[in-house]
Amino acid sequence: MASSPAAPAPRRASAGRFFVLEGLDGCGKSTQARRLVERLRALGREVVHTREPGGTPAGERIRAVLLDPALGEVDPLTEVLLYQAARRQLVAQVIAPALARGALVVCERWHYATQAYQGAAGGAAGEAVRASSDLATGGLEPDRAVLLDLPDAAAQARMDRPRDRIEARGADYRARVAAGFRAIFEADPGRLRIVSALGTPEAVEARVWEALRDAL
Amino acid sequence: MASSPAAPAPRRASAGRFFVLEGLDGCGKSTQARRLVERLRALGREVVHTREPGGTPAGERIRAVLLDPALGEVDPLTEVLLYQAARRQLVAQVIAPALARGALVVCERWHYATQAYQGAAGGAAGEAVRASSDLATGGLEPDRAVLLDLPDAAAQARMDRPRDRIEARGADYRARVAAGFRAIFEADPGRLRIVSALGTPEAVEARVWEALRDAL
Repeated sequence: MASSPAAPAPRRASAGRFFVLEGLDGCGKSTQARRLVERLRALGREVVHTREPGGTPAGERIRAVLLDPALGEVDPLTEVLLYQAARRQLVAQVIAPALARGALVVCERWHYATQAYQGAAGGAAGEAVRASSDLATGGLEPDRAVLLDLPDAAAQARMDRPRDRIEARGADYRARVAAGFRAIFEADPGRLRIVSALGTPEAVEARVWEALRDAL
Repeated sequence: MASSPAAPAPRRASAGRFFVLEGLDGCGKSTQARRLVERLRALGREVVHTREPGGTPAGERIRAVLLDPALGEVDPLTEVLLYQAARRQLVAQVIAPALARGALVVCERWHYATQAYQGAAGGAAGEAVRASSDLATGGLEPDRAVLLDLPDAAAQARMDRPRDRIEARGADYRARVAAGFRAIFEADPGRLRIVSALGTPEAVEARVWEALRDAL
């Protein structure tokens, strides 16, 4: 169902474009997504800003289950399927309709996060992650995804709120997530770009813009 | 990953056996499951009684999301993935460990319900339902499943509580579910048995027992 990881995203028939920001918690995704959305709106385009997990009423309910520190033991594949359920709802209710009407979509996280967190770091089988991602997305891939890459210590220093269930998993887990993200993005450098998230928000914003402007 | 639908369940290496009761809401699954559990306990065996969706702390949280009448629009495949997430957690946390220690497991519903409700009646693609069921169960199939078959009017008359989100979908939907269940069970008559749920609880209990005692 999905195109192979190294295939370019098909140029959409409509003017709609799908952009993804990825990275560890604390890397600045939300800040950079807001800045990117402002830049894109300044072009006079309709821009839809959304996030995973969540972004829909059902998805936000799923997000609350996933991130609840009181949830207890959760099988890695249960976690994968919950992320995929929220993702499917976001595709069906928000992303696909927005692209169809020609909007620009900026989404914080995509199935790369499931591969990195639940697969590479969490022990869910890569094949199960890929198969369920294909089901959830129906093969929809971003026109450009940007990984905000940051040393773990810097990401941790930026976290100014209590850790949720996933974030509380410790430095070894986060190191495996970071390595997983880099491997995924390095495998498809045409469409997936790695950008340093060090420096001021303005500096990072300029790097993100350079990394995706040609995909507009 | 799963065996083909018509293949017999492999005889388990342990003394554990896995029994499933299926059928429309109101068919008497919970009543009959309790009676079956009593019969099995009278044999001196450890019996685990569980249900879908739910049966684990995470699964009950997912159940609450799925059945909430206030959830709003939910894509059929989102619904499928949520059921599969709850199912996966039940397999990992309850059913597989119970079978491994030689217990008898009685479960209300299994992936047949996802095929009938979300697939046959709800419009989710059959292939997506099967693929996600394989992921969730890891190919685990019951030693015997019994469909409690009941005319819709009789099932509706037995419902003595407010309808949840799925139950509120109306007679046409329920007719498609019932037809879906029958088609699934008729395709594998050795392991999947259809039993009339008409009559007294005692009469139905006797039929259920006849339908599964040789699988013990």
